[in-house]
Amino acid sequence: MLIPQTAYICEVGPRDGLQNEKKILDIDTKVKLINDVVAAGIKIVEIGSFVHPKAVPQLADTDEVAKRIRRSPDVEYRALVSNVRGVERAIAAGVTKVKLTVSASESHNKKNWNRSTQQVIHDFDDCIRLAAENRIEVSGAISTAFGCPFEGAIAVQQVVEIIKAFEKIGIREISLSDTTGMAYPRQVYEMAVTVQQLFPQNEWWLHLHNTRGLALANIMAGLQAGIIRFDASFAGLGGCPFAPGASGNVATEDVVHMLELMGVKTGVDLDKIIGVANVVTQQVEHQTESFILKAGKSKTLQ
Amino acid sequence: MLIPQTAYICEVGPRDGLQNEKKILDIDTKVKLINDVVAAGIKIVEIGSFVHPKAVPQLADTDEVAKRIRRSPDVEYRALVSNVRGVERAIAAGVTKVKLTVSASESHNKKNWNRSTQQVIHDFDDCIRLAAENRIEVSGAISTAFGCPFEGAIAVQQVVEIIKAFEKIGIREISLSDTTGMAYPRQVYEMAVTVQQLFPQNEWWLHLHNTRGLALANIMAGLQAGIIRFDASFAGLGGCPFAPGASGNVATEDVVHMLELMGVKTGVDLDKIIGVANVVTQQVEHQTESFILKAGKSKTLQ
Repeated sequence: MLIPQTAYICEVGPRDGLQNEKKILDIDTKVKLINDVVAAGIKIVEIGSFVHPKAVPQLADTDEVAKRIRRSPDVEYRALVSNVRGVERAIAAGVTKVKLTVSASESHNKKNWNRSTQQVIHDFDDCIRLAAENRIEVSGAISTAFGCPFEGAIAVQQVVEIIKAFEKIGIREISLSDTTGMAYPRQVYEMAVTVQQLFPQNEWWLHLHNTRGLALANIMAGLQAGIIRFDASFAGLGGCPFAPGASGNVATEDVVHMLELMGVKTGVDLDKIIGVANVVTQQVEHQTESFILKAGKSKTLQ
Repeated sequence: MLIPQTAYICEVGPRDGLQNEKKILDIDTKVKLINDVVAAGIKIVEIGSFVHPKAVPQLADTDEVAKRIRRSPDVEYRALVSNVRGVERAIAAGVTKVKLTVSASESHNKKNWNRSTQQVIHDFDDCIRLAAENRIEVSGAISTAFGCPFEGAIAVQQVVEIIKAFEKIGIREISLSDTTGMAYPRQVYEMAVTVQQLFPQNEWWLHLHNTRGLALANIMAGLQAGIIRFDASFAGLGGCPFAPGASGNVATEDVVHMLELMGVKTGVDLDKIIGVANVVTQQVEHQTESFILKAGKSKTLQ
């Protein structure tokens, strides 16, 4: 079984993980969690989002979080934005990379943006210009890339069209996102092979949810297709709004545990990241669907 | 991604699933569950075990269950046995295949049997003879084949020695069992390739637990190595005694769901098997770690 020897984890817990949590964490707690995942070896962190405060109250203080975190020169601190105002806030907060999201599904996109996918990407143009002027990098994310809770299957061609539109506005780092946990291994493998062949200069991320138990199998499929970048969330925080009570983001500690068992280097200290995940569940005051928090790491690794 | 187009599921819920459940189900309920999984398309069912009633009170009535189930001529009804007395009960109950289990780990084996692995297999000889005289087939299972909660890693060679010992007494159908959820995809793939190369005439099963979230990824690895037979338990029943609260057996509906998404034929009706799993959770009076029971099947399949 041929898989890459190194993989990169983007810790999305402070953004995608926390955004639907009822309990609002204070700024100090968020800052400490971000500092702690970095201390555990994470090199890429999504620290929050610069969207309208009313849209995501939990992340209304991302400006302040961004200013207070301890900055490591070899760590990338990203934030989600959706318009020019978000880019302005990112500039003011000293964030060096922003992420723009569009949905592969027209129905899902319409619900979130009230515009077509191509229009959404076209409207990103102002964000790109402002970011470029301020030397801020821009990455893209394609949600519902592996299936839509309204439309069902999403054709690879739909995803390809969005990647082309992103390319036109200069975005070459793209996260393929399984927003509601509909991806399955063969699909992930085939999508990964296709997009790498069509856009060999792009940088790819997989953002996988464990809603139907397939996230780790999908990561394996991605690895086998040569993908080496994966989003994950501490303690598996971030449920699925379409399936209340079901698992959401794949847990960072579950991913690192699997990769470490297979000798794939992530640079992340498993014990330390388990420690952070434990603190997270205390802070949000509920258990999560993390496997390693319940079962502990395999004896093979002890 | 090359995987087989057909796979077989052995429903182990009535045995491995129920055996640790506190609430003792009555005979009628067990009979109905077995009849219902068969009606959903399952062709191989582990209906119970003929071990000492005090060892597993939940399964003390397997004799009666075996007599009352509706028999389909194309379905295999198996039971676990551990000695000649068990084989005698299997004969009396009209069970056509029995399963003998040994552990790959000496420590785990010692704890369960108080004998060495080789001695345990040697002592199976009387069971084999009695079964053969009564035209009952015998299969073998190797527990902790992918890791032991006491010893940690298990060398492939240890497993190979047990397969050889099984071969000597005429057992060629073997289930490789990840008793406490320590298996990981690359290991499963390599083990599957090795045993198939060394023992090309054997028939292989994988018995995987989802303790650390890897069961479906491990099934994918097995499929990629050409394994087509998998144990699974309705609703994911059957926790891990070494990690209370953690997931146990991979859920039948989660496996069938994944395989159906990829076009792998199992002959099992997904909706019907979800229906059985729902009844199971009502009967045992608690929720389980089944993904599909919580999230529902993917929109792609609707």
